[in-house]
Amino acid sequence: MTMRTLAIVGVGLIGGSIALAARSRRLAKRIIGVGPRSFHLERACQQGMLDAWHDQLEPAVREADVVVVCTPVDQIANVVLEAVAHARQDTLVTDVGSTKAVIVKSLLAQLRQGSCFVGGHPLAGSERSGPQFADVRLFENRLVILTPEDWFAANAVDRATAFWQNLGARVKVMTPEAHDRAVALTSHLPHLAAAALSAILPAELRELAASGFRDTTRVAGGDPALWTAILQQNQKAVADALLQLRAALDRCLAGDMLPFDDLDINHIRDLLIEAKRNRDALGS
Amino acid sequence: MTMRTLAIVGVGLIGGSIALAARSRRLAKRIIGVGPRSFHLERACQQGMLDAWHDQLEPAVREADVVVVCTPVDQIANVVLEAVAHARQDTLVTDVGSTKAVIVKSLLAQLRQGSCFVGGHPLAGSERSGPQFADVRLFENRLVILTPEDWFAANAVDRATAFWQNLGARVKVMTPEAHDRAVALTSHLPHLAAAALSAILPAELRELAASGFRDTTRVAGGDPALWTAILQQNQKAVADALLQLRAALDRCLAGDMLPFDDLDINHIRDLLIEAKRNRDALGS
Repeated sequence: MTMRTLAIVGVGLIGGSIALAARSRRLAKRIIGVGPRSFHLERACQQGMLDAWHDQLEPAVREADVVVVCTPVDQIANVVLEAVAHARQDTLVTDVGSTKAVIVKSLLAQLRQGSCFVGGHPLAGSERSGPQFADVRLFENRLVILTPEDWFAANAVDRATAFWQNLGARVKVMTPEAHDRAVALTSHLPHLAAAALSAILPAELRELAASGFRDTTRVAGGDPALWTAILQQNQKAVADALLQLRAALDRCLAGDMLPFDDLDINHIRDLLIEAKRNRDALGS
Repeated sequence: MTMRTLAIVGVGLIGGSIALAARSRRLAKRIIGVGPRSFHLERACQQGMLDAWHDQLEPAVREADVVVVCTPVDQIANVVLEAVAHARQDTLVTDVGSTKAVIVKSLLAQLRQGSCFVGGHPLAGSERSGPQFADVRLFENRLVILTPEDWFAANAVDRATAFWQNLGARVKVMTPEAHDRAVALTSHLPHLAAAALSAILPAELRELAASGFRDTTRVAGGDPALWTAILQQNQKAVADALLQLRAALDRCLAGDMLPFDDLDINHIRDLLIEAKRNRDALGS
C-alpha cells in the first residue's frame, strides 16, 4: 500500500517515528504534520521528516488518506471527531493513545455509524518526548493493539492492520476494556511504581543510585502531564492493579499489626522466584 | 600499588569483574580465585582471568596481600573470619556485600582488635550471575562504599580505598547503618517492587510487555537466593522503605475506605512531577 497523503496529528516521539518509518518504507507520497508552531516541528520539515505542517487540523486532514492522531490521550477523542468531520468519508482515522476504553466509548457516542475509525495503541515508546527523539525503527517487530467496534466501518481494522504491518509492527486485536486492563499491569502500574520509587529517594542519596535504580525508575522521566492524563483515563484498571501490587508487597511484611518492622522472608523468597520466572520468560 | 597476590573468594559477576579489572590495570602479579569447582571457574583460569583457583580458602589466602570476599552476603562474615585466621597479619581482607550492618557487627564481635578488615560495597552489578558475565569496566567511575570501624586496623580503609581507586572506582565512607538505610531505598526496595510487578503479571499478558516494563522489572531477573539473603540481612531498613513506598502509593488511591476503586489524580500529578525531577537529576 502506498497512499497519497498521511496526516499525523501531534508530531512528538510517536508521531515523529511514524513519519520517519513511513518515509523510509515509502508508505506515503506526502506526509503532513499537524501541531502548534514549534522549533522542533519546523526543523522536522527542514530535515525531511515531514513534507509540510499545519497548525490547523482541517487543511491537513482534507487531503489525507490516513490520519493518525498522536496527541495526549485527553485530546484524542475530540481530535478524531474533528478529523472525521473534515476528512473524506473513506479516510482512515486512527490513534495511538495509551488508553482505549474512554476514547472509544466517547467516539461510539458521537461518530456516525460506519465512520472509518479504529482505536490503536503501538506498544512502543520512550521516557523522552518530542520529534527530536523520533526513531525510524521504533515499531519494528513491536506489537500494536487495535480495538475495533462493529459500529465503525468494517474495513477500518484491515486498513489499520496493513498500515502498521507496513511500518514493521505486528497487530493484535483486543476489546478496549481488555486492552486497558492489560496495559494497567504492563505499563501504567509500573509507571506509578517507578515514580513512587523515584519520588521517595532523598536528594542526598542520589549519588548512591546505580544501574538497578536507574533501570527500575527510567520511565519516571516521562512527561508528568501526559502520564497524569493516561492514569486518569484508565483509573479503574490502574487502581485495581495498584491493589494487586499492594497485596503482593504487603505479603512481604511480617507481623500482625501496624507498624510492620520486619520482612516475611518466606513470602519474599516465593515472590522473587515467581518474579524471576516471569521476567526470564520475557527475555532481555 | 602493585601487590604480589590478590585472592578473590567467590568468583561470580563481581569477583570476576574485579579479577579482569585488576589484570587489565596490572594491580596484582598473581590473581587466585576461590570457589567450588565449576566449568566457569576452570574456563576463567584457562582464559587468563585467574592464575589459579582453589576450592579451599586456606591455601589461597595464606599467600595473599589482599583478600576480597565476594560470596553471597549470608556467608561473608564466616569467610572473612576464616580468611583473617589463615592470612598474614598485614593482609587486607575486605568484602563486596550489598549489606553491611549485620556483617560488620558480627565481625566486630569475633575479630581481634586491629584486624586488617574493612567492609565494602561497590555500587555496580547486573541482574546476571557468574564470571562469564564479568566486565572489565564494571567499576569505572562507580561508587564504592567503605564502612570502617575504629576496632579494626586504621590502615585498612586507606588500603581498600587505594585498591578500589586503582580499579577505576570512587570511594565514599559511611557507617554500616547509614549504608544499609541508603541502599534499602536505592537498591533493595526497587528490587522488591520490580519483583512484585513481574510476579503479578499473568503469563498471557507477557506479549504486551514493552520496553517500559522490561526496564522497570529488569532487576527481577536477579538470583532469588542471593536477593533473599540480602533482603533478610537488611530487613529493618527494607521494611521501613517499603512502608514509605506503600504510603506514596496509597496517596494515589482515592476514597475513604477499602476497597479503593479510583485514583486521586491530584496526588498522582504531584507524585509524577516530583518523580521526574528526581529522575532527571540522575541523568540517563
